[in-house]
Order: sequence, then structure tokens, then C-alpha cells
Amino acid sequence: MVTSSPPRRVYLDAAANAPLLPEAREALLAAIDDGWADPRRLHREGRRAGLLLDGARETVAALLGARTEEVSFTGGHAQAVHAAALGVLAARHRAGGGMVVSAVEHSAVLAAATRATEVRSIAVDRSGRVDVAAFVAAVRSGGVSLACLQAANGEVGTLQPVAEVIEDARSAGVPLLVDAAASAGHHAPSTAWDLLTADPRAWGGPGGIGVLAVRSGVRWRSPYPEHDGPERVPGSVDVPAALACAVALRVTDDARAEEGPRRAGLVDAIRATAAGVPDTEVLGDPEHRLPHVVTFSSLYVDGEAVVDELDRAGFAVGSGSACTASTLRPSHVLAAMGVLTHGNVRVGLPLRVAAADVTAFRDALPGAIARVRSLLTDPAADSPVTEPVAQPVTAPTTEPVEVDARGLRCPLPLVRLASATRDLAEGTVVRVLSTDPAAGPDLVAWCRARGHALLAQDPLPDPSPGAREPGLVSLVRLGTPLEGRG
Amino acid sequence: MVTSSPPRRVYLDAAANAPLLPEAREALLAAIDDGWADPRRLHREGRRAGLLLDGARETVAALLGARTEEVSFTGGHAQAVHAAALGVLAARHRAGGGMVVSAVEHSAVLAAATRATEVRSIAVDRSGRVDVAAFVAAVRSGGVSLACLQAANGEVGTLQPVAEVIEDARSAGVPLLVDAAASAGHHAPSTAWDLLTADPRAWGGPGGIGVLAVRSGVRWRSPYPEHDGPERVPGSVDVPAALACAVALRVTDDARAEEGPRRAGLVDAIRATAAGVPDTEVLGDPEHRLPHVVTFSSLYVDGEAVVDELDRAGFAVGSGSACTASTLRPSHVLAAMGVLTHGNVRVGLPLRVAAADVTAFRDALPGAIARVRSLLTDPAADSPVTEPVAQPVTAPTTEPVEVDARGLRCPLPLVRLASATRDLAEGTVVRVLSTDPAAGPDLVAWCRARGHALLAQDPLPDPSPGAREPGLVSLVRLGTPLEGRG
Repeated sequence: MVTSSPPRRVYLDAAANAPLLPEAREALLAAIDDGWADPRRLHREGRRAGLLLDGARETVAALLGARTEEVSFTGGHAQAVHAAALGVLAARHRAGGGMVVSAVEHSAVLAAATRATEVRSIAVDRSGRVDVAAFVAAVRSGGVSLACLQAANGEVGTLQPVAEVIEDARSAGVPLLVDAAASAGHHAPSTAWDLLTADPRAWGGPGGIGVLAVRSGVRWRSPYPEHDGPERVPGSVDVPAALACAVALRVTDDARAEEGPRRAGLVDAIRATAAGVPDTEVLGDPEHRLPHVVTFSSLYVDGEAVVDELDRAGFAVGSGSACTASTLRPSHVLAAMGVLTHGNVRVGLPLRVAAADVTAFRDALPGAIARVRSLLTDPAADSPVTEPVAQPVTAPTTEPVEVDARGLRCPLPLVRLASATRDLAEGTVVRVLSTDPAAGPDLVAWCRARGHALLAQDPLPDPSPGAREPGLVSLVRLGTPLEGRG
Repeated sequence: MVTSSPPRRVYLDAAANAPLLPEAREALLAAIDDGWADPRRLHREGRRAGLLLDGARETVAALLGARTEEVSFTGGHAQAVHAAALGVLAARHRAGGGMVVSAVEHSAVLAAATRATEVRSIAVDRSGRVDVAAFVAAVRSGGVSLACLQAANGEVGTLQPVAEVIEDARSAGVPLLVDAAASAGHHAPSTAWDLLTADPRAWGGPGGIGVLAVRSGVRWRSPYPEHDGPERVPGSVDVPAALACAVALRVTDDARAEEGPRRAGLVDAIRATAAGVPDTEVLGDPEHRLPHVVTFSSLYVDGEAVVDELDRAGFAVGSGSACTASTLRPSHVLAAMGVLTHGNVRVGLPLRVAAADVTAFRDALPGAIARVRSLLTDPAADSPVTEPVAQPVTAPTTEPVEVDARGLRCPLPLVRLASATRDLAEGTVVRVLSTDPAAGPDLVAWCRARGHALLAQDPLPDPSPGAREPGLVSLVRLGTPLEGRG
């Protein structure tokens, strides 16, 4: 009888959701036994829970650069963000009710911003870094109740210039909400915030709990129905979760001096591997970034298919935004950066990740992408896109060549486009019809990556009836044909 | 060397917050190891978490009489209640925006009701049961977007006549929110609800998670900023907590046939013991009640002092409302019932409570109350209230006897009143000045308990400047002197 050991699993999707650290698991268990009671009750069990909660709050506050009384535990990160933003909007509505946000904030920040009277979304560069001058100008322009700038972007790892904007925000009298969901624990804490939100899942803490800190003196009013609980949100705190959250943050923070550079080195190696995969762009700032997050996008593949292929090989990675992967919308972060929104793979290295596991991942990556590419065919062409087509390069025509990609889901519009234009001469103008909402930004990224010129992009004149998105017609002038595909 | 075993602890405050059941603890641990990932992710870890979450949702739905897709997990009970109520108000604002609630709803329901255009709070009788005719009339009176009636009251255990009001509510087109925070698991589930909320802590589940069920067809719209998560509230579910919540509910439900009658018998015994304590009233419906909750109030003692005294003796019990114990406000439930709001003790028997522990508690109770009474003195009289005063009964005077209890915190106003009136003749009119917000309802209860007539109760004509409460002047005509104190 042949026995086989269970397949080895390597979890590399720890940017937003790391497994519970062993120390945090132990603390959770101890607190389930000792701190399960309601800390507001007067008996011994309640007081004991209260002491554990006090300790957890003190630890989290100290490690986030806050005062103990400034820190609240919430039901999760999204609630922390909503409470922070809506609470400032409620308290400072006389300032005008406007919000300034970077275009790459966490979806919870952007959701809260829908409650503002006006939202000014500030562009980011190709690395995902916000435009400081534009951000500050918007904050100063009046009518702004709250400005939001994340500490680092969780999808691509780029650090944001929070320290460069906070003085201007303060002198304009506008509080700055810094969402540290991706960075807390992994990057040195900063005091450059007026409100801070954080997600324990991202540092190996438990789910079901979030962290909100509001600086003393910042005007804030609960946006929830009145409640007499001890936190800034309704309901009672899950004390075991709060303790595990604090212990995990302590462990991650303690390990930072060693684990930061070590993981940054592993990330550098992954970046180098990914950059060597054909038609693949490594995203995010190569230097001013989180030590444990790396993201890249490959042309002509579906990110979910790559995730699936890597999963079968034993590696768990993410794709796109954790918060939009379940929808058909392209990642707003990647779209704002002007990079490919499909073919996206995100790696988040957990604390103490084994170097050998990262090496194994790097060994597996190019083949996984190649396999997905070889399987992805244009339904019309019914052949793999990588299959060479023996056909002479034709001279440019005056009439645009039309490529109808309507009804195709990404990345198929680019697959069809690559297939249709592979042998067209430089200067040929192609008219692309598409209906997938990700096709617009992806065409922009494709043109830049392949040296083509995007001449125009307009809504389809005759969208199909009942379509959720009107679709696009894009005019592309082909550049010098490069080696290989499109 | 003499060693002593640690003092025995008996936890009897399980009405709102029971310790995690061993089966739920095991499930939590298993799910921390197996279901910690984000169930929305596509890799094996995510899919495994998703399967666990699906199973938890199915179990909870089946045990609450709901369909799987009707059930959402929230960040806690308060969030479930707020989401339920504010979501109906948002979706049905054209109905008028009014809410009908019983006067003894959970504080989270009453908090949500502050967002209604109008709130009709329906009175309860002395047992805490809502007035069905008044409730139905209010629901039918127009302008009502939502009606709320708890399945049972968590402070006194009285079951509410939900089945008697739901048909009228439905025929009036008004959805009924049934808060099952106190009853779920402990009492047979009912299908008489349009929206249901529940609190896993009350059935031995974990903290940090709540349950919201919205019947298919009930108009509901998320009151939160838009989000693309899988639940009716923002953020991701804590899968291990959801699984532990489901397992605990399953265990509690399975045990109900046996544990219901057994605990009801233990509760009957506690009720008998408490009824035998002098000047003590056992609260709530003696028959139509939860099997595990019993509450009583004693004159001339502070409930917190009794909790403290019992705590020193090894017993953890509650007092007043779990949600108002940390404030100076009297319990709104006890006030609405017209019973003493001070001197209140609540016992919640956890599942599988040992009968011997309940016996030990019953043995300890009378002495604990007597000790607290013996220590409580009127600061002016500077002597225990139970100390007999050898003084002839005086004849009634025509001028009211004034008792100034201003500045005294409950139960001291009643202590002073009892002391001052102990030897006054039947028919004497006493004018009581008080400033504690609980003194008003407590005077009502005291008069009824002692056979006095409350002639009038008005705001103090000259409240002290800056006082939060205006204070009261109450006129009492003394009835037949009873044995012992006032």
C-alpha cells in the first residue's frame, strides 16, 4: 500500500488576514477561561475580565502610539473605519461635511465617504503614492470635515506620505484619519494621525475585533444610537479577542526589527522572480513599502485562475483587493494606479514565514502563470493565445480594424485584442468594443505596457439594453511590434 | 504547612453572559486552526472557512426557525438590533418612520428607537408583560414603520405575548422585530417574527458576534455605508466565532427538554427563598417566564452592595440591567414595571448548573441581604435602619411631616423615609424631597409594598442650580403601620 503525506500548504495571503499567532491563540484560550465575563459587572468574574481588558487596551495603545483612553475596541476593522469617519462628520458638520481621500483608500473608507457632502478623491502615481500637493490643496480648499490617508496601501504595499500632509491638515483645522489596517505591527508606528484605525487580522490577531483610536481633543461624536457601553461603538467588548489582539500586536511589534528586513529581503526575491515572468509588471513602490507585501500583474491571465493554479500547487495567495474579489468590479486601487486590474496576484508573507517556502513559491510561480496562459483561449479563436499565428505583417490600413470584445469578461478582451493585432503593422488604428468594466483601465495599462497609443476612449454609442455598464469604444494606434504577443 | 483549596466560585449571572460552553470552546479552537481565513478568498484555506461559515449559518437558521439566507452574523447583539431597526426605518420611511416598542425592550432597541420620527412606548403590567391591546392599537394607528417586542425580558424573565400581536402587526403591514437576546436557545423557537435578533453570549456562545435574521420579503435596507461583504453589516465574519455560536446554540437547544424543567424547578426554589426574605419582592411572571432567570428586589438595600456581599461569599449574580449597571440611571425595565429599582438581584442559571450550587446560594442569600441591611445607615441618623427606635406612635398631624432626602443616593432616600416614618400614625401625610432619579419610581414601589398612598409626585419647585435631574417632591399618606420598618 502506498501512503502519501498530506500535500504541503504554504500560506502567503497574510496581508489582510494572517493566521492567529500561537502566542495570541494561547492568550485567547486563557482569556476564554478567565476573562469571558462582562467587564462591566461587579463580581469577581466581571472585574477579572475588566482587568484583562484594561491591560489589552494599554498594550494596544502603547504599541500604536496612542494614550490608553484614546483607544476603543470595535466589532471589526470596517466598523472602526465607519465609526471614525462618520463620527468626525457628525461632530464637524459645520466645517462643511466634505471629505478628502486618496483614491486608494480601503473600501471601508470609501464607503464611509459616500456619507460626506462632497468627496475629493486625490490621485496616486503609478506606484500608488498619493499626490501630496494635490492632497494638501484639497484639504485646504475649505468645506472639508475630514481627510483620510492610509499609512500604507494593503494591496500593493506602498507607504503613504502621511507625515508630509498632517501638519498642513492640522493647520487647516482638518483632522486626519490614518487607516493603518495594512501597516500596524509591521511598520514602525507613527504619531502622525488624529484618528487611527487598525485590523488585528493583519497582524496575526483574531477576527471579530477592530481598533479605533481618537486623539484627545479631536472632535468626534458617536454616529450610532446612544449607548452606555465602555467603547466608542455600541455593545460590549469581546475581552478574549481584545487580549489576543494585544498579544499578537506585541509579538509582531517585538519581531519587527528582525522580521522586517528579513521579509523585505524575501519580498525582493519574489519581485525579481515576478519581474522575470513575461508580460508581468511588479507593482508598488520598490523601496518605500511594507516589508511583507508584494503584488504583480500579468497580461493575458485571469488573477483568479492564477490563484487557483497556485492553490493546486500548494500555495495560497490573494488577487486584487480582498474587499472586491467577490464582485465583478475591478480593484479600485489598481485602476487608480493605472496598472492592469486583471492578472493580479498579491503575496502577503506571514510573520516567521519559512524562507524555503518562499523559495518554493518562486520556483512554482513562472510555470503556474504559463500554464494558465496556455489554457486561456479566446472563445472566438478557439486556440491558445500563445500559439503563434503564421501570417505576414500587413500594412496599416486607413480604416480602423475593429475588435469586438463585447460580452467577454476580463482578461479575455485583452486576449482577443492581442490575438487580433499580433500581426498588424505599426500605426494601424484598432477600434475596440468592450463591455467588461475592467476593460477600460486594462486597455490603458496594456497600451502603456506594449508601447501602443490610446487615442480615445468613449462610451459605446449603442449599449445593449439593460446592461449595467454602458461599455466602451477605445481607439488604439499600434506601436512598434514587440517580440511575441500583441 | 497548611494548604487551602481555592474558594469555590458559583457563577449565577448567566442571563446575559454565560461562560463559553465546553463544546463551543472546542469548536472555536478547531475553527481557529481550520477556519481562520477569509471565506471570500479563493484558495483552499478560504474555501474551508467558507464551508464552516455555511454550516454555522445553516445550524443557527434551523434552530431559530429561519431560512439560511435570512441569517446574518454581526459584530455583536447591539449591532444586530441597530441593523434590524435602522434597516427597516430606512426601507420603510414612507410608512411614517414611527416605532412602537414595549417599555421594557433591551436598551439597544430603545437606543435605535431614538432614530424614529416618533416612538410609542407601550406600558407593561407589574409582571413586565406588555399590554397587548395597547400595543396592537399603537401598531394600527398609522405612521408606524416598525414594531418591536422582545421574546422575553432578560431582566425579569417574563415571556412576551409575541404570538398575540404578530398577526395584527402583519395585517397592519408593520414588520415586527423580535429581540430574542434572552430567550434564544433557552425557550422553544417561534416563527412569530419578521426580524429576529439574538445574542450568542446568552446561550454559552462567544462574544464579538451577534445574530440578525430578516425574513424574506421584509423590506430592509442596510443603514450602513455600502459594503460588499457577505453579511447585512459591513466587514467580514469571524468564522471561528460563528461556528462556536452555532455549536453552543445546538447544545443549548438539545438540552432544553431536560434543562428547561430542571432549571425552572431550581428557579422556583430560589423564588421561594427570596420571597421569604423580609421586604423582598420576587419579580416577573411566576409561570410564563424563562426557565433560568429569576429576579427580586429588596427594600432598604443597594443591589450593588448585595452583589458585592454575595461575591465575597463565592456567588456571582447580577443587579439591575446589565446595560445600565455602569450608569446612575435606574433600570428602565424595573421602573416600567413599577417595582423597586434598587435592591435588585438577578440570577441567571447557566446550562447544567449544579443543583448543589443553587442550594448553597439559597442558603447564603438571606444572610447576605441581612448583613447589607445592617451596614446601611442613614448618614443623618447614623444608626442602622433595622435598629428599633423606642418611641411612642404619635397622632397624625395636619401639617405634612417633611423628610428631606435630597442629595442621598438610592436606596438611602427610602432608608431615611423608613426611619423617619416608622413611628408615625396611620393617616400622617409625609412630604418627601429627593434628587436621586431612582427615588421617584422607588417611592411608588415602596408605597405599594407598605400599604401607603402616594398622593402626588411633582418636580421640586427649587432644584439646586446645575442639577442634572430636577428632583421630586412626593406626598405620601401613611397606611396601617405594619410590623417592623416603615
